[in-house]
Amino acid sequence: MLTKEQLIEYSEDARKTYLDHISIDCVVFGFHEGQMKVLLLKPDDEEKWLLPGGFVQKLEPIEMAANRILKERTGLDKIFLQQFHIFGDPDRAKFHHDLYKDTVPDEENWFAKRFLSIGYYALVDFFGVVPQADQFSELCTWRDLDDMPELLLDHELIFKTALDTLRLQLNYQPIGYNLMPGEFTMPELQKLYETILDKKLDRRNFQRRILGFGILTRAEQPRKGGAHKAPYLYSFDLEKYQNALTEGFKGGW
Amino acid sequence: MLTKEQLIEYSEDARKTYLDHISIDCVVFGFHEGQMKVLLLKPDDEEKWLLPGGFVQKLEPIEMAANRILKERTGLDKIFLQQFHIFGDPDRAKFHHDLYKDTVPDEENWFAKRFLSIGYYALVDFFGVVPQADQFSELCTWRDLDDMPELLLDHELIFKTALDTLRLQLNYQPIGYNLMPGEFTMPELQKLYETILDKKLDRRNFQRRILGFGILTRAEQPRKGGAHKAPYLYSFDLEKYQNALTEGFKGGW
Repeated sequence: MLTKEQLIEYSEDARKTYLDHISIDCVVFGFHEGQMKVLLLKPDDEEKWLLPGGFVQKLEPIEMAANRILKERTGLDKIFLQQFHIFGDPDRAKFHHDLYKDTVPDEENWFAKRFLSIGYYALVDFFGVVPQADQFSELCTWRDLDDMPELLLDHELIFKTALDTLRLQLNYQPIGYNLMPGEFTMPELQKLYETILDKKLDRRNFQRRILGFGILTRAEQPRKGGAHKAPYLYSFDLEKYQNALTEGFKGGW
Repeated sequence: MLTKEQLIEYSEDARKTYLDHISIDCVVFGFHEGQMKVLLLKPDDEEKWLLPGGFVQKLEPIEMAANRILKERTGLDKIFLQQFHIFGDPDRAKFHHDLYKDTVPDEENWFAKRFLSIGYYALVDFFGVVPQADQFSELCTWRDLDDMPELLLDHELIFKTALDTLRLQLNYQPIGYNLMPGEFTMPELQKLYETILDKKLDRRNFQRRILGFGILTRAEQPRKGGAHKAPYLYSFDLEKYQNALTEGFKGGW
């Protein structure tokens, strides 16, 4: 918790620098070989955790703000963040009001204003990035989805909405280009989908559906070695993958 | 255009009533028997048109604000509006600045602030509602999608993003419950999809895919009368339809 003087100083700086009433929160999912995690901060002197978040500078485009905030708070740079929802419940402000109501009046506490938070999400390979905590946090670390700590504010809702969005996205957008090796087998790709959805999928249905999307190229030679029948190798056709990202799947209407 | 005195008075009222920096714009699509339209306002003394929009009261949940704004500006009530995107380009404020920069300084013109606009969209039967212009508009009317007037501000972008979202939504959510009669033929439902997508669809593929979603019930008796083979009648299974709205299609992963 900040001292009264610190809070007033930070409030004055924030008032000059940032737009009132707008914040951004980032849900960065990490995937690696069948494991899925989310990037969280543990603030100093708090039991509960936070999604990395911050505010929008007065003349800053919101996509730039999202990337700057993620970099400042976690060290992660050049991540493809997608806007997914704005959280506008008037009661989400109460936390900052309650925390300081006995030391600093709301008029001087910029953070006690009502904030609408724009949610951004991303999915990265957690082996490819090194999170670093900022000055306000003890820890910045990947947490398993099945071992989540309690979250502050409405960050549980923001996290769950991002996860629902990611799962829904599997139905209409390609995924995995930055998560799979250059060549991969069908079971390896199926594992990505199963991990995100947290359920087993039927092997044949998966193969038929994913091939129907028209974004995969099959190598002529199966993978060598091993006692079993050698599996075919696939790679993403980057041009078709990009088209499907912007225009939807060939398998659409 | 407002007089200087009007603008200053409206600015003072707005400053007391609304959150700074947040606006809402609504894209209401209308469908009826193969025609698709969008609801637009023609402001007084302007050549260009606008989407119905407004501001969020200081303690108002944003979904309530969207519904209130749509009702105040167009008379449409109890419409299911869905949030789809927030538009945060810093330059989108320029219009209100430029319009009044010679008569009222920006400090006194609340509307010249930077506003991030939350986009909401809906799809309704345009025979079922009667639009009414508000006090700031000459006209509030349905315009054909292939005969769109020029739009003010970034409303062309907001409109196009809503249309893309609606088309994408056809891939992962059911649509049409409020647009089709209680019983309908497969070609009648196909017409809805073709109208939204603005393209012809293959009859067999459409039938296979839409039945695969598991949201339709077929009546035992085909429709009577007519010289041709009588077509089967379908209706939406409301329970399955609602499930698919919240949990995605059975045909999903």
